[in-house]
Amino acid sequence: MKLENASVSIIGLGLIGGSLALALRDRCGRLVGVDTDQDARHWAVDRAFPAEVTADLKQALSGCDLAILALPVEAILAVLSRLGHDLPSPGSVLDVGSTKRAVVQAMNQLPPDVGAVAGHPFAGKETSGPRDADACLFCGRPFALVPTERTSEEGWDLAEQVVAALGAETWVIDADEHDRRVACTSQLPFVLALSLLAVGDKRAAIDLSFWNAAASGFFDTSRLASSGIPMMRDILHTNRFEVTLALDETVGWLQQFSERLASEDMKWIETQHTHLRQLRQTLAPANPEAGAIHENNDLWPGA
Amino acid sequence: MKLENASVSIIGLGLIGGSLALALRDRCGRLVGVDTDQDARHWAVDRAFPAEVTADLKQALSGCDLAILALPVEAILAVLSRLGHDLPSPGSVLDVGSTKRAVVQAMNQLPPDVGAVAGHPFAGKETSGPRDADACLFCGRPFALVPTERTSEEGWDLAEQVVAALGAETWVIDADEHDRRVACTSQLPFVLALSLLAVGDKRAAIDLSFWNAAASGFFDTSRLASSGIPMMRDILHTNRFEVTLALDETVGWLQQFSERLASEDMKWIETQHTHLRQLRQTLAPANPEAGAIHENNDLWPGA
Repeated sequence: MKLENASVSIIGLGLIGGSLALALRDRCGRLVGVDTDQDARHWAVDRAFPAEVTADLKQALSGCDLAILALPVEAILAVLSRLGHDLPSPGSVLDVGSTKRAVVQAMNQLPPDVGAVAGHPFAGKETSGPRDADACLFCGRPFALVPTERTSEEGWDLAEQVVAALGAETWVIDADEHDRRVACTSQLPFVLALSLLAVGDKRAAIDLSFWNAAASGFFDTSRLASSGIPMMRDILHTNRFEVTLALDETVGWLQQFSERLASEDMKWIETQHTHLRQLRQTLAPANPEAGAIHENNDLWPGA
Repeated sequence: MKLENASVSIIGLGLIGGSLALALRDRCGRLVGVDTDQDARHWAVDRAFPAEVTADLKQALSGCDLAILALPVEAILAVLSRLGHDLPSPGSVLDVGSTKRAVVQAMNQLPPDVGAVAGHPFAGKETSGPRDADACLFCGRPFALVPTERTSEEGWDLAEQVVAALGAETWVIDADEHDRRVACTSQLPFVLALSLLAVGDKRAAIDLSFWNAAASGFFDTSRLASSGIPMMRDILHTNRFEVTLALDETVGWLQQFSERLASEDMKWIETQHTHLRQLRQTLAPANPEAGAIHENNDLWPGA
């Protein structure tokens, strides 16, 4: 089935769902947007979302060829558990949640007639909500697609057409591999951002002008603390095993750094800095905003 | 003495010294730039640095009313130890190093005829070297001035005129207070940036396509790893007591986070995230790049 003939429903019109809606609105046979939040629905209508906008999940799933679940991960799991029970089964389902192991497990339990693909676009902003939605959010970015026991040929084909329509690049990966990586590259920087603010907050409580000293480096490093709260809670919860492993490794490294510094081993510190600075320059030589993959195609299997 | 009649020497033409030179070149009676590096001197000549550019420190300090030391902290300490010994004493000296305790101790040992003020402009980039020098680097930013036992009225007055000429704002602070704060707001985010890269580097060594998953959040959080190597070595070394304290607090918070996550205490995690996200928004509501002080004048004693 061609995407341009397919009936597609986007469940959830937040930053990601709203961006999907803007990018896909002229690329599908029919596009339905679903959100229980009235403001999000009003946004969809205001931004000239071309088709139906509804709060009725059941209606949006009836006769739907592809349902895209753009919700926090635990809400994705809740919707998956209802498909074929109190909610009608769509022909295919694709999620765009940020962790994949729990989603794949839930997809494996779907009725056999639902074609299910787990997905994760590597794109986002540190804001949330549809007001910042952007049709180009996914352009040139990798979009992980994870096969499940319920993946049908048509479901996979539709998912690949969605990725292409977004201007993104398909990256086929296994759920365990995916979750292990994002623990390090997404959740770990988020928790480090929080830790920086938490330590500052404690100092500021006894030193009211403490924050005067915070400059751009502080704000760069703490930026991810602005991520959406329910989204991060679900991501951390469903990936807690990998995230705690990554945190334990980080704690070990920081303790080693602290010990070397206390013993004035400036040679070790300089060597580490030189190596890691070079590493970062290799990964993001021109435009750090854009992420690694555009800039270093050797590292990108889909390129 | 008016700055416009003063003979000023800038010792060190890196990012900070070069930016000082561009900002001060039309504001002093005479401006001399000093660097042992030929490329830095060529840059100063190319960028129409209006006065003398030399590699000869002795010559630059002879008859100098104000010497501005724009060097890594340990090099500042080395120059200070030579003033009045094998190097001529300038009328006054101002440093712009990023830690202040060690500098103030060294200034307190200067010959009594040298007026000495310790300083630190809260501005910078994650690059180094004079090519990125910018006359507006200090505009609107706080510039810490720390009195020493050698601070003369004329030295302080000249330092305040320099701050005003840069478009920066004087922030009078004690050396211990200063170093305690920057450990948290500058050095801690730097070490966290390194830790993120170090953990990723270890993973990537056994998983060659690991870096595919790194996106803008990873690069924001690791940006400070690009800071200059000798500069950071000296900052960490001279502030090692406060930095190790800040690291130990961070390690404690990360361990607590990891334990709460492992025990699925999502309520605690959500509460922390909500509070710290709000804190960051209060500190940097409009433009996180600019730092806190412009944006929240209530927190800034000099405003």
